[in-house]
Amino acid sequence: MPSGKILVAQGGGPTAVINQSLVGVALEARRFRSVERVYGARHGVRGIINEDFDDLTQETSHNLELVANTPSSALGSTRDKPDAKYCHEIFEVLRAHEIEHFFYIGGNDSADTTRIVSLEAQRAGYPLRCIHIPKTIDNDLVGNDHTPGFPSAARFVAQAFAGANLDNASLPGVYVGVVMGRHAGFLTAASALGKKFPDDGPHLIYVPERTFAIEQFLHDVKQTYERFGRCVIAVSEGIHDASGAPMASLLAKDIERDEHGNLQLSGNGALADLLCEEIKSKLGIKRVRGDTFGYLQRSFIGCVSDVDQREAREVGEKAVQFAMWGRRDGSVAIRRTGFYSVDYELLALDDVAGKTRVMEDEFIAASGTDITDAFRLYLRPLLGSGMPDAFRLRPNPVPKVRNAAR
Amino acid sequence: MPSGKILVAQGGGPTAVINQSLVGVALEARRFRSVERVYGARHGVRGIINEDFDDLTQETSHNLELVANTPSSALGSTRDKPDAKYCHEIFEVLRAHEIEHFFYIGGNDSADTTRIVSLEAQRAGYPLRCIHIPKTIDNDLVGNDHTPGFPSAARFVAQAFAGANLDNASLPGVYVGVVMGRHAGFLTAASALGKKFPDDGPHLIYVPERTFAIEQFLHDVKQTYERFGRCVIAVSEGIHDASGAPMASLLAKDIERDEHGNLQLSGNGALADLLCEEIKSKLGIKRVRGDTFGYLQRSFIGCVSDVDQREAREVGEKAVQFAMWGRRDGSVAIRRTGFYSVDYELLALDDVAGKTRVMEDEFIAASGTDITDAFRLYLRPLLGSGMPDAFRLRPNPVPKVRNAAR
Repeated sequence: MPSGKILVAQGGGPTAVINQSLVGVALEARRFRSVERVYGARHGVRGIINEDFDDLTQETSHNLELVANTPSSALGSTRDKPDAKYCHEIFEVLRAHEIEHFFYIGGNDSADTTRIVSLEAQRAGYPLRCIHIPKTIDNDLVGNDHTPGFPSAARFVAQAFAGANLDNASLPGVYVGVVMGRHAGFLTAASALGKKFPDDGPHLIYVPERTFAIEQFLHDVKQTYERFGRCVIAVSEGIHDASGAPMASLLAKDIERDEHGNLQLSGNGALADLLCEEIKSKLGIKRVRGDTFGYLQRSFIGCVSDVDQREAREVGEKAVQFAMWGRRDGSVAIRRTGFYSVDYELLALDDVAGKTRVMEDEFIAASGTDITDAFRLYLRPLLGSGMPDAFRLRPNPVPKVRNAAR
Repeated sequence: MPSGKILVAQGGGPTAVINQSLVGVALEARRFRSVERVYGARHGVRGIINEDFDDLTQETSHNLELVANTPSSALGSTRDKPDAKYCHEIFEVLRAHEIEHFFYIGGNDSADTTRIVSLEAQRAGYPLRCIHIPKTIDNDLVGNDHTPGFPSAARFVAQAFAGANLDNASLPGVYVGVVMGRHAGFLTAASALGKKFPDDGPHLIYVPERTFAIEQFLHDVKQTYERFGRCVIAVSEGIHDASGAPMASLLAKDIERDEHGNLQLSGNGALADLLCEEIKSKLGIKRVRGDTFGYLQRSFIGCVSDVDQREAREVGEKAVQFAMWGRRDGSVAIRRTGFYSVDYELLALDDVAGKTRVMEDEFIAASGTDITDAFRLYLRPLLGSGMPDAFRLRPNPVPKVRNAAR
């Protein structure tokens, strides 16, 4: 009979729905007679070391529901990556509190943290059930149809490009929007879901799954600009040259890395500015504007997919069920079972942790600068209900009187 | 008896609700028996020169309503500033089409365009009724309580900072968000409406109404960071030093100006990047992130104030009424009559055109880095209904067992 206490924490970058998973764990756990307390660690695994726990059992269900609908990590987050020593400190604290269930909500790196903690617990003989709960706006967890957090971020990106396209049509020029995504282009590709009419932007989409060459880029932009009199471009922050070096890293003075070895690509506008400068100077186009979506795309309050909310809640609930009724550690994964429905399964931590999914070839058009209908069909149901829509005046041109010959 | 045709056009940067005003004109005009046709000029005054008119009378009311709810300028926009020669070309086209009513939806520069066209028409003896319809996200038109477009952009900025604050609380550091606003800090100040709890960001707000000094800025950031362990900062793109030189212009290689002489401040991330570099290098804070809200804040689809929508519709309707029942040219203005209600009046074009309103002193805190309750009370009703809200876990700390002494 395990102890009556369980622990939940959140790691990595926040999403719009990560608190749904937290609340899913908190509320589902209390339905098990064996669970007496649900503790939350503040700022991920670091909160365990610091013994910084909040007792979620003392929360009201009303406030938990309000928190579930609030973006970003309510418990705080961390990018700490534990080693064996760190893990032993973790176990000492868990032992002192008689905690034998650990739920970690996060992306690849948090899955890896869960794997390390699970492995070290076995080595140390500490009886700990470890379950990783998926979230990442990058959608780059292997074994998942998609990951909670991605649909809401994708919705933001699609809405942002729908608006940027309208803006660009009104005052024509070139617009470059830089979207998050280190290795996987899913979020950048979501920009295409903002298109409605055949001449709508984004006209060009650059993802990290294809090699980026500035000459080809300028050629593409020139051709598009000549055709439409304007050009809207979606670029992933992770685009890289043939050697694999990210374009963003060629620009940054000091390249910052986190503890998982990831380059810091977000949080500055250098990539958009570089691309705009190239377009201005090499193509001689005057009106060139660049936006870097930055943190807006993952934490904007008020742009969320209801499908994403429900699924993020469910992965939290299922994590508790897998832990309480199952016999092994693992990572909860989303499997698509219909158009549109999903089910959940528990994958081995080794099969998920530290691995990176990228966009499947069938999702990227042969041109390398567009996405396919397969991707549209894949993403559309995830965006949820009530997507705002753009409409145009229907053409009713007035016959010219004075300038009839022009 | 004037001709049966009226002309409407849109100028300057688009907003989320500028099409409400367009549709307000189109639908209201047809209620007048004297109006037979409502023409729209494509891309502002330039569309008149090009004789590029669309007959809005042939639109369905259903599609007009859908367009009204679509952000950005449905007719397209321009930054052209007409001179006497340009105006004479305008009158030739208008004469050929027997158009004697001109409605121009736009900000300061478009008000000035309307003033110039009105003046030149009088000089040329062309019988033209000219009405300027206000819109600008900058909220810098004199004589108006506020301008259509500002409330929706303000809502975007408030929501963006509400989310950025949550993100920053989750992974603490410094966050700099750069907001549009050349001379007026209204939109940057709107960031404060995203605050809920006393320790929420933005902790510091820099508007163009106060002189910006980098040393004082670094001092403010250091103090805030020491107090809260993090710091969220809202900065207007128009901040300038004591000489009046915009910080952004000190950075740009080629300074672009539009035809109205305005410096191009948006469309790159240079200002945010500069401020972040300063904080990193001078204060030694590691996690420093900058976002430039850019075009998202004025054209994001799906973030709109319903109050703004209704008022933008009304200024269009009132413009037609003033034109048909009045005897003079002018600029429609919003006057606040209660908490919360408004009425509309027609100001002389000379009293609005080319003038710039900035934030009243009573709206800016004595510190110069915060806003007052007077501003909160001013802005809150404009943001409309259904503002998303952020909630926190209530503190229920678990007593420490192992680290009790720490």
